[in-house]
Amino acid sequence: MKLEIAVLPGDGIGPEVTDQAIKVLKAIALEFDHMFKFRIADVGAVAIDNYGVPLPEQTLTLCASSDAILFGAIGHPKYDNDPSAKVRPEQGLLKLRKELGLFANIRPVKAYDTLLDKSPLKRHIIEGVDISIYRELTGGIYFGKKELSGDGNMASDLCQYSREEIERITHLAFEAAQNRRGKVTLVDKANVLETSRLWRKVVTEIAKQYSDVEMDFLFVDNAAMQMILNPKQFDVILTENLFGDIISDEASVIGGSIGLLASASVGKKYAMFEPVHGSFPQAKNKGIANPIASILSAALLLEHFELFNEAQMIRIAVDKSLKLHISTPDINANYDTISTSKVGDFIEDFIHNPG
Amino acid sequence: MKLEIAVLPGDGIGPEVTDQAIKVLKAIALEFDHMFKFRIADVGAVAIDNYGVPLPEQTLTLCASSDAILFGAIGHPKYDNDPSAKVRPEQGLLKLRKELGLFANIRPVKAYDTLLDKSPLKRHIIEGVDISIYRELTGGIYFGKKELSGDGNMASDLCQYSREEIERITHLAFEAAQNRRGKVTLVDKANVLETSRLWRKVVTEIAKQYSDVEMDFLFVDNAAMQMILNPKQFDVILTENLFGDIISDEASVIGGSIGLLASASVGKKYAMFEPVHGSFPQAKNKGIANPIASILSAALLLEHFELFNEAQMIRIAVDKSLKLHISTPDINANYDTISTSKVGDFIEDFIHNPG
Ligand SMILES: [Mg+2]
Ligand SMILES: [Mg+2]
Repeated sequence: MKLEIAVLPGDGIGPEVTDQAIKVLKAIALEFDHMFKFRIADVGAVAIDNYGVPLPEQTLTLCASSDAILFGAIGHPKYDNDPSAKVRPEQGLLKLRKELGLFANIRPVKAYDTLLDKSPLKRHIIEGVDISIYRELTGGIYFGKKELSGDGNMASDLCQYSREEIERITHLAFEAAQNRRGKVTLVDKANVLETSRLWRKVVTEIAKQYSDVEMDFLFVDNAAMQMILNPKQFDVILTENLFGDIISDEASVIGGSIGLLASASVGKKYAMFEPVHGSFPQAKNKGIANPIASILSAALLLEHFELFNEAQMIRIAVDKSLKLHISTPDINANYDTISTSKVGDFIEDFIHNPG
Repeated sequence: MKLEIAVLPGDGIGPEVTDQAIKVLKAIALEFDHMFKFRIADVGAVAIDNYGVPLPEQTLTLCASSDAILFGAIGHPKYDNDPSAKVRPEQGLLKLRKELGLFANIRPVKAYDTLLDKSPLKRHIIEGVDISIYRELTGGIYFGKKELSGDGNMASDLCQYSREEIERITHLAFEAAQNRRGKVTLVDKANVLETSRLWRKVVTEIAKQYSDVEMDFLFVDNAAMQMILNPKQFDVILTENLFGDIISDEASVIGGSIGLLASASVGKKYAMFEPVHGSFPQAKNKGIANPIASILSAALLLEHFELFNEAQMIRIAVDKSLKLHISTPDINANYDTISTSKVGDFIEDFIHNPG
């Protein structure tokens, strides 16, 4: 297969972890006889430094002319505690999602046996957890009309959803459930919010088309509890933008390391793959950043193009690296000298020589 | 002190746990020479059954003419999965908060040593946790304008905040922090939402008046992670309505039992005290409902009127009951015959004869 992949390394540890993902994809291309072409562009704080905007026109053009996007991370501390900053790195990501119509954010959350001890949750709670969260990504309150009164004493944000926005991600979630354990849990706040009631209505209608999938409903406050009390109850979680942001970040820590979590953001035409972790600027260029999330994002990319054997090969290599403790210090207290690129090298080698 | 207390037992286990709180308050009145008068009224599903509305006029009048309100729980399964129901028990609570101007919901979250093993989180994560969450309760998206388009294909909810709404609860939170460990964490989403940016601006200004209190900021998605990773970092959490609903419910499970959590909802003139747990209709009239949350709500009521010794006496009695395993089955696997009223009796006796 020929794939043109736009690479947006971004800020902080973004570039160094993305390098490992590229290394791994090149090994896959060689072993499975594919042609992957990588084209690199700026996004985030580095783009603000170079072009004055977090998503330059040429970056967007590159993405729009590629088959897939491999994304690193964005964010820089100089923007974090300045509520008055007009230009922010995060706007680059929001704009990219919006411009490319990436309406569904998909986040697998898995408890790896080798990492159970690192989880803040007790072993019996998380052993075997395997969740896929489908978060609506281009609607809701993050994109609704924002107003600040002239005197600065009154602010508002509008949360809005259309039937169509709900339908398209709902189908994705139910199709995913059919290939998993056959359950979809809708997280909403239908006892209070009008948008949630629309979600519940539309999703309930669509559920009838998937008679092999069990449907469940949870209010978002209860879901935040259940994610801690009994995460094993979840297979596919379907939810709107803000609730998905909160619930998926909460879920991201139960597995013991956010350094392992990958994500996909897909639309009708485009698809982007990125680690869940942020730009972690304190770790930049120290060789301590965990590249696994970025490498597993590459596996999600391959799956998106139905290269299932290739993706599976990456997953096996990752499992092997974890079992052998070929891991960065964040999850490897005993051997703290294994660097970001060493982990990438091991996985690259394993793909070439899967013992 | 003379206090007129409106009692709204509500639905499910509400009445039986509230009975224990009254029992305990009567013991306190006797020992400390106070006059507490209790007047009972309907709210929730039982009020819908009797009057057609979840908050009858006479209930509201009674509350408005009382010094404080002791609330049980509301909710009935027959309304839960019916998105089309026009009248719902929960509306009674929302209306009560709005009518009485109860703008701040205060939820203490404490890890009790005797219950550490029951927590889904590991012991070292939660040992010593002591948080007080200040949630804005009458503004934000729960009360904003709701719209559904004529064709039913588009819905919206408006999130709105005024400077004044933010100021009044912010002062309460900072005053509370002064009497605790001196730290306030504002939870918002200021990188995306206009309302959150107003919160951050107003709170930052007010923080300058409390130089002895340390100020911290967290985005809500990060807060949902930090509550699991390191809840000990929190002293007072201050946040808006929806975020407070999610974060406080998430926090409610880390201590090991929601059956122990009390809450206060206060305004300029009125104050209401209630357990965090719901109406739990499956347990109704079985004598298995844990009355501690309701009893600790009574302690919060006493503190509200600066009856600190009286409140402290209740807390000591509760600690004693937990240590001696005079507890209902939900937290007492070994002795599952201790009923709701037995726990109330023990605490009542202890207040009369604190060994
Ligand atoms: Mg997030
Ligand atoms: Mg709640």
